[in-house]
Amino acid sequence: MSDVADPLSIGVLGYGFMSRAHANALARLPMFFPDAPSTERAVLVGRNADAVETAASRLGFAATATDWREVVDDVDVFYNLGPNHVHADPSIAALEAGTHVLCEKPLARTLDEAAAMRDAASNSDAVAGCGFNYRYVPAVRLARRFVEDGRIGDVRQFRGQYLQDWLADPDAPWSWRLGEDLAGSGVLGDFGAHTIDLARFLVGDSAGAIERVSGHLQTFVEARPAPDDEGTRPVTVDDAYTAQAEFDNGAVGTFEGSRYAHGHENDHRIEIHGSAGSLSFSLERLNELRYADSDDRGYERILVTGEDDPYGEAWWPPGHTLGWEHAVVHENYEFLRSIAAADPFRPSFEDGYAVQRVLGAIERAAERGDWVAVDEITDE
Amino acid sequence: MSDVADPLSIGVLGYGFMSRAHANALARLPMFFPDAPSTERAVLVGRNADAVETAASRLGFAATATDWREVVDDVDVFYNLGPNHVHADPSIAALEAGTHVLCEKPLARTLDEAAAMRDAASNSDAVAGCGFNYRYVPAVRLARRFVEDGRIGDVRQFRGQYLQDWLADPDAPWSWRLGEDLAGSGVLGDFGAHTIDLARFLVGDSAGAIERVSGHLQTFVEARPAPDDEGTRPVTVDDAYTAQAEFDNGAVGTFEGSRYAHGHENDHRIEIHGSAGSLSFSLERLNELRYADSDDRGYERILVTGEDDPYGEAWWPPGHTLGWEHAVVHENYEFLRSIAAADPFRPSFEDGYAVQRVLGAIERAAERGDWVAVDEITDE
Amino acid sequence: MSDVADPLSIGVLGYGFMSRAHANALARLPMFFPDAPSTERAVLVGRNADAVETAASRLGFAATATDWREVVDDVDVFYNLGPNHVHADPSIAALEAGTHVLCEKPLARTLDEAAAMRDAASNSDAVAGCGFNYRYVPAVRLARRFVEDGRIGDVRQFRGQYLQDWLADPDAPWSWRLGEDLAGSGVLGDFGAHTIDLARFLVGDSAGAIERVSGHLQTFVEARPAPDDEGTRPVTVDDAYTAQAEFDNGAVGTFEGSRYAHGHENDHRIEIHGSAGSLSFSLERLNELRYADSDDRGYERILVTGEDDPYGEAWWPPGHTLGWEHAVVHENYEFLRSIAAADPFRPSFEDGYAVQRVLGAIERAAERGDWVAVDEITDE
Amino acid sequence: MSDVADPLSIGVLGYGFMSRAHANALARLPMFFPDAPSTERAVLVGRNADAVETAASRLGFAATATDWREVVDDVDVFYNLGPNHVHADPSIAALEAGTHVLCEKPLARTLDEAAAMRDAASNSDAVAGCGFNYRYVPAVRLARRFVEDGRIGDVRQFRGQYLQDWLADPDAPWSWRLGEDLAGSGVLGDFGAHTIDLARFLVGDSAGAIERVSGHLQTFVEARPAPDDEGTRPVTVDDAYTAQAEFDNGAVGTFEGSRYAHGHENDHRIEIHGSAGSLSFSLERLNELRYADSDDRGYERILVTGEDDPYGEAWWPPGHTLGWEHAVVHENYEFLRSIAAADPFRPSFEDGYAVQRVLGAIERAAERGDWVAVDEITDE
Repeated sequence: MSDVADPLSIGVLGYGFMSRAHANALARLPMFFPDAPSTERAVLVGRNADAVETAASRLGFAATATDWREVVDDVDVFYNLGPNHVHADPSIAALEAGTHVLCEKPLARTLDEAAAMRDAASNSDAVAGCGFNYRYVPAVRLARRFVEDGRIGDVRQFRGQYLQDWLADPDAPWSWRLGEDLAGSGVLGDFGAHTIDLARFLVGDSAGAIERVSGHLQTFVEARPAPDDEGTRPVTVDDAYTAQAEFDNGAVGTFEGSRYAHGHENDHRIEIHGSAGSLSFSLERLNELRYADSDDRGYERILVTGEDDPYGEAWWPPGHTLGWEHAVVHENYEFLRSIAAADPFRPSFEDGYAVQRVLGAIERAAERGDWVAVDEITDE
Repeated sequence: MSDVADPLSIGVLGYGFMSRAHANALARLPMFFPDAPSTERAVLVGRNADAVETAASRLGFAATATDWREVVDDVDVFYNLGPNHVHADPSIAALEAGTHVLCEKPLARTLDEAAAMRDAASNSDAVAGCGFNYRYVPAVRLARRFVEDGRIGDVRQFRGQYLQDWLADPDAPWSWRLGEDLAGSGVLGDFGAHTIDLARFLVGDSAGAIERVSGHLQTFVEARPAPDDEGTRPVTVDDAYTAQAEFDNGAVGTFEGSRYAHGHENDHRIEIHGSAGSLSFSLERLNELRYADSDDRGYERILVTGEDDPYGEAWWPPGHTLGWEHAVVHENYEFLRSIAAADPFRPSFEDGYAVQRVLGAIERAAERGDWVAVDEITDE
Repeated sequence: MSDVADPLSIGVLGYGFMSRAHANALARLPMFFPDAPSTERAVLVGRNADAVETAASRLGFAATATDWREVVDDVDVFYNLGPNHVHADPSIAALEAGTHVLCEKPLARTLDEAAAMRDAASNSDAVAGCGFNYRYVPAVRLARRFVEDGRIGDVRQFRGQYLQDWLADPDAPWSWRLGEDLAGSGVLGDFGAHTIDLARFLVGDSAGAIERVSGHLQTFVEARPAPDDEGTRPVTVDDAYTAQAEFDNGAVGTFEGSRYAHGHENDHRIEIHGSAGSLSFSLERLNELRYADSDDRGYERILVTGEDDPYGEAWWPPGHTLGWEHAVVHENYEFLRSIAAADPFRPSFEDGYAVQRVLGAIERAAERGDWVAVDEITDE
Repeated sequence: MSDVADPLSIGVLGYGFMSRAHANALARLPMFFPDAPSTERAVLVGRNADAVETAASRLGFAATATDWREVVDDVDVFYNLGPNHVHADPSIAALEAGTHVLCEKPLARTLDEAAAMRDAASNSDAVAGCGFNYRYVPAVRLARRFVEDGRIGDVRQFRGQYLQDWLADPDAPWSWRLGEDLAGSGVLGDFGAHTIDLARFLVGDSAGAIERVSGHLQTFVEARPAPDDEGTRPVTVDDAYTAQAEFDNGAVGTFEGSRYAHGHENDHRIEIHGSAGSLSFSLERLNELRYADSDDRGYERILVTGEDDPYGEAWWPPGHTLGWEHAVVHENYEFLRSIAAADPFRPSFEDGYAVQRVLGAIERAAERGDWVAVDEITDE
């Protein structure tokens, strides 16, 4: 264990849904992961002083701030949970100050921004992590363990689909997520980043890197009712994307994301076929991993709550299921442990940058109408 | 809101799995249910001083005790999470001292004990609750809402099965749960209590009381290897039970429990058929309620994570699933709110007693080989 | 192979749904089971001369008759597919004439009738079969093979539920199936007979006979609109039944049937738990058998269309599913083969009688309100 | 009804699996579709005289031939069920002779062949059909009805995957299907043709034509053990393909096929998302259609066996499921009805040609690494 502050003081930028998830995670560590470094929720940062005050009180922060500049070198750890356009500057400033950083995904709005962040991480002794929390769902980790242990043999195909339904109704009102200025990107950046990250996490070591991709972005409804009920506003991001991929070992992949899928609320589906077995996972049933080995005649459902399952010992007896938020707890645990051990944390800023290159390649492929080698996508 | 201590000091008896679940629940309330009365984890009670000390430190209790007698009138609220044979005395003592009590299920070892507890609750101004936490799973509450709203019409059939697999292997070693002296009862008391409680909760108001039952208790393996590897020890509780029931309105029911069901880890399955629809639930997929109405051609899967779903607003955006432990959080929230509002809490000791009468009727029916009217089961 | 007529001339009583199923089966044997004895559809028997004429023409019968007496000793094989009240006399007459008989289930209206039929079969050299066709669903036969091969170990529990929805609506009109005079019995006889037969078929050899049962019959709606729209008619049969059972080896069982189960159209569900595994089957997905062995962590879905699966070689390549009617084809194949080989056929009249004893025991148990030993049920 | 031969004499080329399926279909029509034109199985054609003799006897053909040239103008209807390289010449010869033709899919080896066949059909008064039998699965037809009736609104996304497992094992032996010379194509032609046809059938009228596609073909194992156990043979067809598509109305699509998917035996999965609902189908559960409308909270399972469902009245009571072969029966029924009514039959040779253009576009896209407009793919 390195010489780290005890407790680690944590500053958090942003007070929305994900800040609640991380504050909850921090609050739960002492009871369930007693070997985690101790932390204090030191400062909550947001531009609206009143709102941040209210949130801080509920989420257990000792103080608040309205400017991240005052915070990033004052705390030991900085959680950047703000919108995408404030990912780069505060994270870089924090890293330059030697402050550890956990930044939400996608890492940045542009590849250049992501490259700058990656460089800042690489030039800093601080730990930098990117918030792809689905890596910390126990069933996802068990899937990776199966791949690593050779239980599906050589990876042949990866299929990832992230389906939601919230825009399926063409009369659903416009929201800031539908404007490129504010959202940066649509489904590709929002859902695709998760899917690409899981592809890399699950099969990247065995199938190798994603070498090249094709892409297709589509906006189904070009304008939607303005939220204030006067006229319409243009939708300037993609409603759905599809992509194909080839991995280094010749495995093929398909990625899809959509906000138009009635019947799917938050359905991140992953299927992997290998020479010796298949794996299947859905975020809507996140306690379950389905596995078919070459001797089986069909998929077997594994309820990933056993003592030997990832993080199984930390929680409840077998058969007592976990929820979405537990992935965030595990992510916090590992991130803080990395700080204490002065170990690198994965997914790193390098991982976030790598995902962004793939997204960039998909976007370029969609524009050009041909396949794009991921290597072709470089920051300037 | 009545004049209650702020914060409410809580004493907890027991430091095992359920104590961890309740300590966690108390710790999470301020962040997710800010209108819950504030609490302090005051004293953790257990006979082994060292073990209770360790647990208290991890679970966030300010002090420890080895004798519940020193605690029950010192705290505002007493959580009795000890084994069944210490349910009655401490709970009664607490209630006599005016201390609110939440006691784990089943309420007591015997109907007489349960009756004494019920009477103590009835004679006390304190709130007394029985820990049937599955009532607080959102999908279960939504099922009840559907029944109340007439969405399945008149209830015709109730089917409840609680299936686990941990004893299916005949060579699995003996444990204290298999001796009547220590466990009090087998599957009927352990699983059946949950099933009977859900039957009462879900259809008791519309189908009416369980009027009469049949019963069957079976021990498949009479002796098992002693844990210390010398010889075997006798199994003196039931490995499985089955029962039939008739409700007041003529609806029929079946209840089953088993520790011999390979492929089922913690599968509490409920199915209800009514004149206008059916409902189906499994604890292994506790975020889901399946519903078939008379116009549907099959079951529709509802992911019970919406804003309008029970407790949906308190947690995460739609599609972000909850785990088993959240039921315990909701139970704590409602129990503490009842205290603050001086309202009765359900499930009450009266409910716990009522469940026990049904279990007693099933047991008597199994002994006698005929149907037993639940009314016939009375404390002396 | 014994000295049998070639082709075997077949007389069929009844021209409804099941006659169509059997005529279809006979027509398909030469193409798919070329080693089956050849047959000719000789005579179709029914009281309404015009209707039987029409049906015979469509179903490929060479002649028709309105009186079974003229037929039973004229043909080699007699299929009794008429309503329950004409099961006994024609079947007995045929057997006395040395004509082979396949009689639909349930074997008879009463145990005495069934006993007379069983005796007639026992006194005849002809082959007598009872039409429990679900025994011939490949997945059901595979389940039996698994039980026989010890793949679930010692049988501990059997659960059978037959659920339909066609009476769930209290305003659904009265039909002849709801009058005891015409229907003989309700759900118990109609659905329960199938469930008891499968219990005997699947676990009878390993768990032993059903020793004793409890029972519950319920009529939810006492009168229904007359089909001619004038007033109502009384429902004099059971709408649902439940039963418990104990097998010879101590295994426990539950049986249920209902016409009030919205969401279930023809759902005959079977679950079996043993010391080394579990099996699960539903008639609505009759190509699938779910199996959990003690090493698995959950059920594996087997698509029972492989070459080595029961009757797999006779049909299509693996993955090409079969329908309900194929069970009837297999049943016809085996029945005719038994005739050719002068081998007994199962399910026999003895099996039909045995099922009826269990149904009788359930009925008596329901009347008396206690458990009834099946041995207690005897014909006079 | 036009003036057609009664019965229609049928000549069939090929005596393998599909010939058995069609012979079965013809044999079953009189009983289940009495309004179908009557047929006689006149000639079975194959090069191996002994084998074709044996097959003809079993499948009920009156005569055999070893040369299709002797047959195509002798019969009223010619079923071309031979391998892909004998699709074109016999079908064209038959059409030129005024003989009706049903030709298995894919229509031809090359687009030029397909174009010649399409032209022959267009120049003939005879009816020409292409054997995409999955169009005749009742659940698929119900899906189309839902799309036509606007029950999913505007089509936004189509997803089709055809997954099998028979080559997943890298040591599985080489077969003729893996050599381009004999098989013509791999997964793209074999599976992709079915998927493209269903895309056109299900959403072609509402989403419009497939405008452009991307493509990816992959061979995972370059050589496999020779079946005669001496050395290996090269695999010269694709083991898996993926493709993206854009429809005329802007809907997006993905298509996939693989023989490397453990846990999937014959899993043709279709999912369609529209502005007002989603549909989901799998060939392994072909009696089921899953439907989510915008008011539902999840998919509802429809068992497509009702009287009002496609072909529901022809078969058994609701809840009695059908098998794969019934699609072939329905296909034969509609094809023969088209002949009798002198109506065009769909899928036509034009449809077969259109599918082939899409496959050609996918193949070209895979070669070139960019998107290909389907219009760009033309014969000669």
